[in-house]
Amino acid sequence: MDTTEFRRRGKEMVDLIADYLENIEQRTVYPDVEPGYLRSLIPEEAPEDPDTYEDVVKDIERVIMPGVTHWHSPYFYAYFPTANSFPAMLADMLSGAIGCIGFSWGTASEATLVALLAARCRAVRMILASDPQRPETGITSKLVAYSSDQAHCSVERAGMIAGVRMKKIPTDQSDKYAVQGETLRRMIQEDKAAGLIPFYFCATLGTTPSCAFDHITELGPICNAEKIWMHIDAAYAGSSFICPEFRPLLNGIEFADSFNFNAHKWLLVNFDCSTMWVKKRSDLIGAFKMDPLYLKHDHQESGRYFCTDNSLFRSLKMWFVFRMYGLKGLQDYIRKHVELAKEFESLVRADQRFEISADVVLGLVCFRLKGSNEVNETLLKRINNGRKIHLVPCLLSGQFVLRFALCARTTESRHIREAWRLITQLAEEVMQELPH
Amino acid sequence: MDTTEFRRRGKEMVDLIADYLENIEQRTVYPDVEPGYLRSLIPEEAPEDPDTYEDVVKDIERVIMPGVTHWHSPYFYAYFPTANSFPAMLADMLSGAIGCIGFSWGTASEATLVALLAARCRAVRMILASDPQRPETGITSKLVAYSSDQAHCSVERAGMIAGVRMKKIPTDQSDKYAVQGETLRRMIQEDKAAGLIPFYFCATLGTTPSCAFDHITELGPICNAEKIWMHIDAAYAGSSFICPEFRPLLNGIEFADSFNFNAHKWLLVNFDCSTMWVKKRSDLIGAFKMDPLYLKHDHQESGRYFCTDNSLFRSLKMWFVFRMYGLKGLQDYIRKHVELAKEFESLVRADQRFEISADVVLGLVCFRLKGSNEVNETLLKRINNGRKIHLVPCLLSGQFVLRFALCARTTESRHIREAWRLITQLAEEVMQELPH
Repeated sequence: MDTTEFRRRGKEMVDLIADYLENIEQRTVYPDVEPGYLRSLIPEEAPEDPDTYEDVVKDIERVIMPGVTHWHSPYFYAYFPTANSFPAMLADMLSGAIGCIGFSWGTASEATLVALLAARCRAVRMILASDPQRPETGITSKLVAYSSDQAHCSVERAGMIAGVRMKKIPTDQSDKYAVQGETLRRMIQEDKAAGLIPFYFCATLGTTPSCAFDHITELGPICNAEKIWMHIDAAYAGSSFICPEFRPLLNGIEFADSFNFNAHKWLLVNFDCSTMWVKKRSDLIGAFKMDPLYLKHDHQESGRYFCTDNSLFRSLKMWFVFRMYGLKGLQDYIRKHVELAKEFESLVRADQRFEISADVVLGLVCFRLKGSNEVNETLLKRINNGRKIHLVPCLLSGQFVLRFALCARTTESRHIREAWRLITQLAEEVMQELPH
Repeated sequence: MDTTEFRRRGKEMVDLIADYLENIEQRTVYPDVEPGYLRSLIPEEAPEDPDTYEDVVKDIERVIMPGVTHWHSPYFYAYFPTANSFPAMLADMLSGAIGCIGFSWGTASEATLVALLAARCRAVRMILASDPQRPETGITSKLVAYSSDQAHCSVERAGMIAGVRMKKIPTDQSDKYAVQGETLRRMIQEDKAAGLIPFYFCATLGTTPSCAFDHITELGPICNAEKIWMHIDAAYAGSSFICPEFRPLLNGIEFADSFNFNAHKWLLVNFDCSTMWVKKRSDLIGAFKMDPLYLKHDHQESGRYFCTDNSLFRSLKMWFVFRMYGLKGLQDYIRKHVELAKEFESLVRADQRFEISADVVLGLVCFRLKGSNEVNETLLKRINNGRKIHLVPCLLSGQFVLRFALCARTTESRHIREAWRLITQLAEEVMQELPH
């Protein structure tokens, strides 16, 4: 769908929404369907080739509406109001299009925390089962969680929130910034010898600094043997696993207790949309179960107590995207970004003044000027002050590195080449001014 | 704005979005403004009377765009991608309009948790300041938090997440289901005598079951004297405080450490939009500070580290709503719901078979058939099975009570009267069938 078609479809959608709200009181306020009614109405898998938009729109009445509780019907008197106004909808359209991320709490960070809390609950339960007299607070104070020193800062924050010890596992350049099984095994042994209780390991597939992949084929069996909950944070890289050629990066997933990726990062689903899988659903339900009368419903046992991002808000846009792009369209998009990253990598490698700082696996290129951190910091400052392109840095083995991440849906080869021209031009200036 | 105007404005917005995305690469990718640049561009307060929509649209370029980092520009190579596609935008428009809430983690629940974590951090810090040798885990295991037995279930969950003891303060009908100062004082004394450390109290203004208001003028000074963090959850009722006649319900707010209400409940701002105030910003920053290199920026000290709902996504729709309704329009809307609740209350009171179960203060009417819980449960089941109107129940002093909450923006007197006709008709059937 290009902008021309979006203009048409967007206007049709405005009319569809106005029609829906004008006639809402003629609809049955509370749905008369059983949980799972959707299953027979939609295919089991996303289409290979795009569906037509007409088919998608037809399915709104056929598939979606029968399951909707119409919160904005004047016959809805349950819970408390949830707001709905035309100006707010107009603003939401605009902010969705601008799609600017205010760093905050959410999505993959939440999944990390949820997994950590479920793991804490499971660990305490297992220990109490074998030693019922042990005070619960005494257990919590002995728990220890692990993650890579390359893991996202939200992992550390999850530890702070849950009030448990969180240890960083060192990585280095020779290991491509990935956590090795041997390192984790050694830390676990030392901690157990010191009386601590290892209970959670957050592995990362595609770290933020350099898109490194922890060795989960080695790490998984260690965690399983030690009854340590292995959570996998694949916030960025997860989307790439829809391409068979990147699927091997996911090897070892069978050892994981939980897995998360953000469809809003690299799968064309606007912010926010984060998905989380859990091997054993009861581990989550046990940790979060709440049942006040005003939330009771007939399908309590079959329903999901905890579904952060599985709500209509998120699933509807995933569904539109899967159908309008088809698997092939989404794969093409991922592959194009990876190709553009490789193209940028070639440009960097062809210039003797620069070096590549980490393997380019997906859509991220970590590079730097051969030389001091100072010269690289100055270069980055110059680039961002120019305001033509925008990059952020990372630290790898103490070196200040520039991260060139393929981001926009519309990036083409010409943008990459223009960006590189600009970077090399500024590099020349910086190198003339500074010793390097 | 009615549906006719929404049809026009929505289509204009579609064109505005298409124009924005078609020409995005001509914009400066990274903004050249200082934090606070907005302050001089917009008035300090929401307008009394509505602005024109034309003025709002003009301000997109004048006020908003200068501060935007254009994440979807092909010159953006920072962090990782955040998705943006036309099908996802179309789906977001639709799900915004349906505005169906999937119960999950979020908004006011998050605010409760954030306040609790900040309070935990502050309490540990204060104790360590006077007794630096005390082990931190020993402190956490002694902490005790309080909330009303009428508080939302998410308060209890916040305690589970933070791993601290959470005690429910009993309320009863004679106190109108509000927490009394004397009850809290007694519990604090008992807990301190038992060696516990009271550190957090979550007061509710407008509880979920019956819209009760805890006595914060009494409770606040107790919390302040005991250095207990008082958080106020006004998720639903908070919106009503824009009307002077409801402002007295907020008396005692000066004693609070933090306050939250959900603009997406009763202030015409579509889901989700939750606002949180904290008396001392450093209490929050201290509890959540994280500073990896890839999130560093030039305005680190003046910026906000933690702003769950202060992002462009939420503020833009608040801004549209405030301007397009004006304070008066929003007050009219709140008052109309309260009037409709009073009208429904009169209908109930005029029928000798029914009773009102709690004071009707805002837009919620708690009522029941005089008689057994069984007869009321059957009535509710009959009402909801009819699928014409939808209500949920609550328990008050062991009694099964029906909650009639004014929810939809478009509810009119005729809907209320029709709902009451239906309820009384079903009540007659039920009373004929069951002993009561």
